[in-house]
Amino acid sequence: MPTSPRPFDDNSLDLIGRPFNAVDTPAVIVDLDVVEANVRRFQAYCDEHGLRLRPHIKTHKIPEFAALQMKAGAVGINCQKIGEAEVMVDAGMSDILITFNILGAAKLARLRRLAGRCALTVTADSETVVAGLAEAMAGAERPLDVLVECDTGAGRCGVQSPEAARDLARRIAAMSPLRFKGLMTYPKAGAARAAADWLAKAKALCEEDGLPCPVVSSGGTPDMWGAGDLDTVTEYRVGTYIYNDRSLIARKVCTVADCALNVLATVVSRPTAGRAIIDAGSKALTSDLLGLDGHGFIPELPEASIHALSEEHGFVDLGNGTGQPSVGDKIRVIPNHACVVSNLVDRVYAIRGGKVSGILRVQARGCSQ
Amino acid sequence: MPTSPRPFDDNSLDLIGRPFNAVDTPAVIVDLDVVEANVRRFQAYCDEHGLRLRPHIKTHKIPEFAALQMKAGAVGINCQKIGEAEVMVDAGMSDILITFNILGAAKLARLRRLAGRCALTVTADSETVVAGLAEAMAGAERPLDVLVECDTGAGRCGVQSPEAARDLARRIAAMSPLRFKGLMTYPKAGAARAAADWLAKAKALCEEDGLPCPVVSSGGTPDMWGAGDLDTVTEYRVGTYIYNDRSLIARKVCTVADCALNVLATVVSRPTAGRAIIDAGSKALTSDLLGLDGHGFIPELPEASIHALSEEHGFVDLGNGTGQPSVGDKIRVIPNHACVVSNLVDRVYAIRGGKVSGILRVQARGCSQ
Repeated sequence: MPTSPRPFDDNSLDLIGRPFNAVDTPAVIVDLDVVEANVRRFQAYCDEHGLRLRPHIKTHKIPEFAALQMKAGAVGINCQKIGEAEVMVDAGMSDILITFNILGAAKLARLRRLAGRCALTVTADSETVVAGLAEAMAGAERPLDVLVECDTGAGRCGVQSPEAARDLARRIAAMSPLRFKGLMTYPKAGAARAAADWLAKAKALCEEDGLPCPVVSSGGTPDMWGAGDLDTVTEYRVGTYIYNDRSLIARKVCTVADCALNVLATVVSRPTAGRAIIDAGSKALTSDLLGLDGHGFIPELPEASIHALSEEHGFVDLGNGTGQPSVGDKIRVIPNHACVVSNLVDRVYAIRGGKVSGILRVQARGCSQ
Repeated sequence: MPTSPRPFDDNSLDLIGRPFNAVDTPAVIVDLDVVEANVRRFQAYCDEHGLRLRPHIKTHKIPEFAALQMKAGAVGINCQKIGEAEVMVDAGMSDILITFNILGAAKLARLRRLAGRCALTVTADSETVVAGLAEAMAGAERPLDVLVECDTGAGRCGVQSPEAARDLARRIAAMSPLRFKGLMTYPKAGAARAAADWLAKAKALCEEDGLPCPVVSSGGTPDMWGAGDLDTVTEYRVGTYIYNDRSLIARKVCTVADCALNVLATVVSRPTAGRAIIDAGSKALTSDLLGLDGHGFIPELPEASIHALSEEHGFVDLGNGTGQPSVGDKIRVIPNHACVVSNLVDRVYAIRGGKVSGILRVQARGCSQ
């Protein structure tokens, strides 16, 4: 069954050079100057601290931005899914870490092919996963690098103790199509130091066993400005830092001016003096709260709150109501969570100096397998 | 800039005739027998009560299912966006209601073209919207039908009083490219009766003014089994009824067996006896809670709760933990909200008698403009 998805509007290219609010709504607009500054700033931090930076492409899902991150000095990229990695290899990326347990014949066959096309590292947290990887890679020309995923407090995937990490490392090292390469964790937010201590213990156990750990990978944008103090960690993975979002403003990781991604919306109704309805609902902003009240921040209306969403409507409480905005006005919204917004759109409009400078396809959108 | 989206896997068609759990995960599977029963059941209810049924395609976004609804006896379909309507007209739908204020030159130009291709009705709740519609339709061969959107208690879009509805109806009727056709509301859940009373008042005011209201359109799946008692209402719009979901089970609108749409997921980690991690996170289930605790219901594990999501991971609390499920096992999840799940996927796998019977493209996915 072939796909015949809707092409971009024939008129999209006519937008180039026009003011950003010429873009029809709802739409995702991305300020390139802010993107570049965000990428540069954290790369400089990592360089200064001798930390290898491996950006997670889940935030943007756009090969052009992955290339920008690599050019700035990243050592490779991080993907969550094989489908994302396939898109990125097609676009020329050559060093990829997939931080997700790969299971099942279909995905393992794709993994084997992918491993032949780039320097690929994967993670595993159980013997079942390791056995599947070994079987899939049987007879491969070069071994597949594997990191042991460690649950250092986040309560998601991962082995439960440094000893269990060492035991799984042994299993990996004993299987010739695989090569034990080190440890990986996604730490609990705010507990990066405890996670690093956990990893240091596991690393010491592995090394006692004659299993070197050249890679110790941690990550997370919320704690990124402390990453340089984590001595054990050799590599740091961050996604959201390229765009930033309202959750990171709330956590004081960035400012409003550092938010590169906005959802452009139109006020479609002003039913009462205090209420505006915009055409950005959960299909544009998602329902992700990340612990916040409301569904986004409107820089032009800092007192307003987006207090509810339906699929195509955002409910804006204007408080006392000043008469503004009017029906037909366009406004920008900084979403709570940038990554999930990217996953809803086929394209983003790149903005430079307030004008549309290009249209980028979100090529890895929807690559959930 | 042409699109070159990822095609369906070359092997997708090999799935036809295989058991549903041969589908790779995460994926959306839809039981066709349940779909057909759901459509038939509410169509029969509407027929019995002399109510015109106009299904909202936002739930499935699939032309084949719109055609099924029409064949069962629907009078037309309901779309929220012009892009959705364009997909459905391309697929042969001929009677469309768009229940969203259309604003801006780009959308109004598309509206004009669309009006030439089907029997089109739109809604409006302000003079600004009405003026835009009239300008866009200037000189059109046949007038555009317009319903006045009424805020009968939901606090979203809509005029605020029956008198305001009558006043806007007058404006519409006075503009020759437009034809006032009646009233529309999306009622507050649980308050369908109050909404109908509101509409009855507005209708009487319009008729006193010599403005007949042949269409009085209400909707909402949660209150659908009382729709036949709303005398004023001529037409009823429902979306979710075709699939049903966990929110409708909670509201006692349907049973688990009536839920046609499931998210198929794989258990990718069993870090502890009480915890399973599945590969369905917010990119598969969305963060929509709709007032519920947790993020979905697992029929095979009725005591389990999906207590948290990250983008690619669902956190399942198994309680005391029985050892099941194992890493690699597939499970089905009934999501909180079916409509937003459809918007995340490019295709759904149609299941009949437990086997894959086809793959359907979610053609109106992402048509947010």
